[in-house]
Amino acid sequence: MALRIVELSGGVGGARFARGLDAVSDVELTVVVNVGDDLPTHGLYVTPDLDTMVYTLAGLEGPQGWGRAADSFVVNAELARFGVDNRFQLGDLDLALKIFRTARMGAGQRLSEVTDSVRTGFGIVATVLPASDDPVRTIVTTREGARLGFQAYFVERQHRDHVLRLDFDGADLARPAPGVIEAIDSADVVIIGPSNPPLSIWPILAVAEIEAAIRRHPRVMAVSPLIGGKTVRGPADVVMADLGLGTGTRAVIAAYRGLIDLLVVDSGDAEPSGEVDGVTVVSMSTSIPGREEAAELARRMIAL
Amino acid sequence: MALRIVELSGGVGGARFARGLDAVSDVELTVVVNVGDDLPTHGLYVTPDLDTMVYTLAGLEGPQGWGRAADSFVVNAELARFGVDNRFQLGDLDLALKIFRTARMGAGQRLSEVTDSVRTGFGIVATVLPASDDPVRTIVTTREGARLGFQAYFVERQHRDHVLRLDFDGADLARPAPGVIEAIDSADVVIIGPSNPPLSIWPILAVAEIEAAIRRHPRVMAVSPLIGGKTVRGPADVVMADLGLGTGTRAVIAAYRGLIDLLVVDSGDAEPSGEVDGVTVVSMSTSIPGREEAAELARRMIAL
Repeated sequence: MALRIVELSGGVGGARFARGLDAVSDVELTVVVNVGDDLPTHGLYVTPDLDTMVYTLAGLEGPQGWGRAADSFVVNAELARFGVDNRFQLGDLDLALKIFRTARMGAGQRLSEVTDSVRTGFGIVATVLPASDDPVRTIVTTREGARLGFQAYFVERQHRDHVLRLDFDGADLARPAPGVIEAIDSADVVIIGPSNPPLSIWPILAVAEIEAAIRRHPRVMAVSPLIGGKTVRGPADVVMADLGLGTGTRAVIAAYRGLIDLLVVDSGDAEPSGEVDGVTVVSMSTSIPGREEAAELARRMIAL
Repeated sequence: MALRIVELSGGVGGARFARGLDAVSDVELTVVVNVGDDLPTHGLYVTPDLDTMVYTLAGLEGPQGWGRAADSFVVNAELARFGVDNRFQLGDLDLALKIFRTARMGAGQRLSEVTDSVRTGFGIVATVLPASDDPVRTIVTTREGARLGFQAYFVERQHRDHVLRLDFDGADLARPAPGVIEAIDSADVVIIGPSNPPLSIWPILAVAEIEAAIRRHPRVMAVSPLIGGKTVRGPADVVMADLGLGTGTRAVIAAYRGLIDLLVVDSGDAEPSGEVDGVTVVSMSTSIPGREEAAELARRMIAL
């Protein structure tokens, strides 16, 4: 019988790990993806992490890990003619998905319904779910007191601000997308992927019913996004320090306090190991640039 | 002092003529463009005649007269992945305009406001106005009794149906776009371009205030879209016959009954000439594939 795995995931790191899980035979994978970074761009519904997940599972992701491989940028460049801010680069192939999604949602479909059509369009077998069909928006309050939407913080300001506080606007009213709780409850194991804990995973857990389902699940693992104490990409290490979670493995454990039983850290981050705050820390290589490395990590974790 | 000219226009033919008017020195041109063919496509606001007008005035129109020159179709092709009907071919450069317009209208701007930004983006000096900011939709009732939206009739069914009746849904409630009446009232001459009279010009005139402004204007000319009794493109001749307007020059005069003082017909359509039903018929070459021919026709008409 297939092993049922649910992964909670942000963008690139979590998507690469999902590709590994998906490559393991006899795994029935459901990914629950962060929607805290979703935002309208040029009037189109853009959901960065869901799209990165879909493209990565389809093996069509761009060289940076997001967007589509071998994409062109004809539309994006042309938007400049109208004085539009087009610094957030959207490729033409990528825009087709955005246009399709926006049209369907404009016609009344929910994000999860459209995501399922998208999944089908890319021939993906794994179940891909947004954490919620309701708006949950990550708001970064900087040390200087500015309240920035995620894209303003991450893309425009290149995550150079120190973070004082994170809010997940709308999370108090948000319900899990259909299938999320059922998938978690029936999963043999839940794995929090190697994503940014505060910025990518907390917005998922901010949906109270999801957090409750994770808390009651008997087997929840996480993969640390740190390698040698630093993030492979993005500002997870800095943000965790800014938020008072500390540094290194301890920061990740603190970010997931009360939620996980086991944390996988990279071999270079072996200290501390064993039991830390009730969490079993296991080290192995967590560098997963390709499908094979990710599948190997997934197999080793499943063996645990 | 500049000669103020208002042209009422549909798509390709009227746009080519506008390019000629625009090339004549000392002409202050305002084009009032049909919006009866507007329709949402992939959730985007598509207004075929306005876009053809803008592209043609900018000298960037596609080889068929519509769309953009040297466009690519990456987005349109990719939409097929999601099972979307993508037979209505939208190019990537063309989509940038559609995306821009849809975003602005989604943010509350009116079609005429966005059109002015678009005009500016293309460096067009002439004033480009939609007939109305309110929805006016051309509905074709076929002899078989089907009610078809314009694109269904024109694009999907390739205008092969015989037309029993035309309706312009919404026209009874539609107001002229800001500036339309002022432009007509202050124009030295109004010219109805070589567009399909029932399908492209009637939806403009269906806005009662526009028709009234045309009726009270002392100098209204029209250019017949027929050459040798046939339309250069599209089904104007067939539609006029279907609607009982007759054939050739007489059909065009009948379509514009009570509205025009002078009709310019192609040299090959010299009969009837002189006064016909109170309209002075003048023949000259109306074949305007290029800017120069169009400018020459414009100059000759201005000389009248």
